[in-house]
Amino acid sequence: MTYAVTGVASGIGAELAQVLKAQGHRVLGFDIRDTAANLDRFIPLDLNDPVSIAHAVRIVGEPLDGLCNNAGLPPRLGLEETILQVNYLGTRAFTGAMMRWFRPGASVVNLASRAGQGWRDGVEQVRRLSEIRRRDDIARFIALEGIDATRCYNLSKEAVILWTIAETEAMIARGLRMNSLSPGAIATGIFGDFQKAFGEVVARNIARAGRPGTPREVAETAAFLLSPASGWIKGADIAIDGGMGAFNLSDALDLRRIGLRPEDLQP
Amino acid sequence: MTYAVTGVASGIGAELAQVLKAQGHRVLGFDIRDTAANLDRFIPLDLNDPVSIAHAVRIVGEPLDGLCNNAGLPPRLGLEETILQVNYLGTRAFTGAMMRWFRPGASVVNLASRAGQGWRDGVEQVRRLSEIRRRDDIARFIALEGIDATRCYNLSKEAVILWTIAETEAMIARGLRMNSLSPGAIATGIFGDFQKAFGEVVARNIARAGRPGTPREVAETAAFLLSPASGWIKGADIAIDGGMGAFNLSDALDLRRIGLRPEDLQP
Repeated sequence: MTYAVTGVASGIGAELAQVLKAQGHRVLGFDIRDTAANLDRFIPLDLNDPVSIAHAVRIVGEPLDGLCNNAGLPPRLGLEETILQVNYLGTRAFTGAMMRWFRPGASVVNLASRAGQGWRDGVEQVRRLSEIRRRDDIARFIALEGIDATRCYNLSKEAVILWTIAETEAMIARGLRMNSLSPGAIATGIFGDFQKAFGEVVARNIARAGRPGTPREVAETAAFLLSPASGWIKGADIAIDGGMGAFNLSDALDLRRIGLRPEDLQP
Repeated sequence: MTYAVTGVASGIGAELAQVLKAQGHRVLGFDIRDTAANLDRFIPLDLNDPVSIAHAVRIVGEPLDGLCNNAGLPPRLGLEETILQVNYLGTRAFTGAMMRWFRPGASVVNLASRAGQGWRDGVEQVRRLSEIRRRDDIARFIALEGIDATRCYNLSKEAVILWTIAETEAMIARGLRMNSLSPGAIATGIFGDFQKAFGEVVARNIARAGRPGTPREVAETAAFLLSPASGWIKGADIAIDGGMGAFNLSDALDLRRIGLRPEDLQP
């Protein structure tokens, strides 16, 4: 199989290239930074630049069995426009343009985030964001909505999840499929940004989970979602967060008494 | 690795045994009906009978790397009590008793259903159901709640999803993990029951999805969730429904305009 991976120079993307190569696949890597590790081809891609997106897609020139949209920016002051463009609008535009290269049955995997799990409450703002088709219109959107870098990040990930849902039926009509993957608390180079943006919630969740997750663990699941073995999973968002989503739901819904009691574990 | 699978005589369970054997694992199969296909050992188990559950667990006698709770009954008139017992209460009791055999890091996978996706609205009824610890108390619960076989089925699957969430932190404390898997429209021997119980919704969803799912597709995902490759997925419910959940969300939230437009697909 031949798979394309964005954001392949570091973190989860670099691990995914390694996992896919180890499984015997051909891997095309995209990134703003040059890399050759575990790649059959490297194609420069700046998702913040519509010209770069068009150019990168044009030079692919070979059929693909899947695409993992992994490239993304963390919540960081000053990156507001770039977060919305790279994490969502540029990724969506890149995916649309890449359709021409997909073989029948190809799988698209979008990296969302645990930070996007509030998507049910974000539908209206995502709808307004999704209307944007020109990079230059993002600054005005941010000013109108009055949102900071952390909200831009969460919004970009809510948008990825909702777009994946919204696109499901059209993907099936094209003979393709798409899912999103929502990691929580992964120990990558941008982990410090999340600790700064989300404060002690991060430390508390990691304490309950026992440890942070590893890029390798997310890469293994992304590789599974790219593979034909996951063929009936379509339009789904898969939480990969060491149980953090479940802790929060269990607290919010007060589910403790539903669980097993000590006497249920007796021989 | 050594994995236990319930409901192994047919459908998804039989496929899972085949997938796990093909991957080189040792497989212990449990069912009310005798079978030897793709199994290293067969242990008789009637989840409707607490004595059978205790006996089956006792004779396992070897360490396990995972358990797939696949056994379950479909919505069918006359099976009300048995559905709640086999699909949820008996499965929960069996899992609790099986804890003694799990190796560190073992993974439990519970087969829930697309029919359990209303779990957010079912919390209170699941809470009442979950208090039951005696098989004989189920008839009274059904009479008090005034529920039919289809509601018993949906409730049993909502309960599996909520129990999986509720148990997540305790599972981590035990060095284990548990997830649920929610298939939709799978072509197995009990498919007719679902068509009868859920009517033309089933046909409409399958038309939009293009086809029903196969037991093999669900088995491949269950095998992935049993394996260490999915190690950071804990307390999650994974939809495997060919996009049906996404269609319904997209309709309900009116997400169409979020998707790609024809001009977005142009080179």
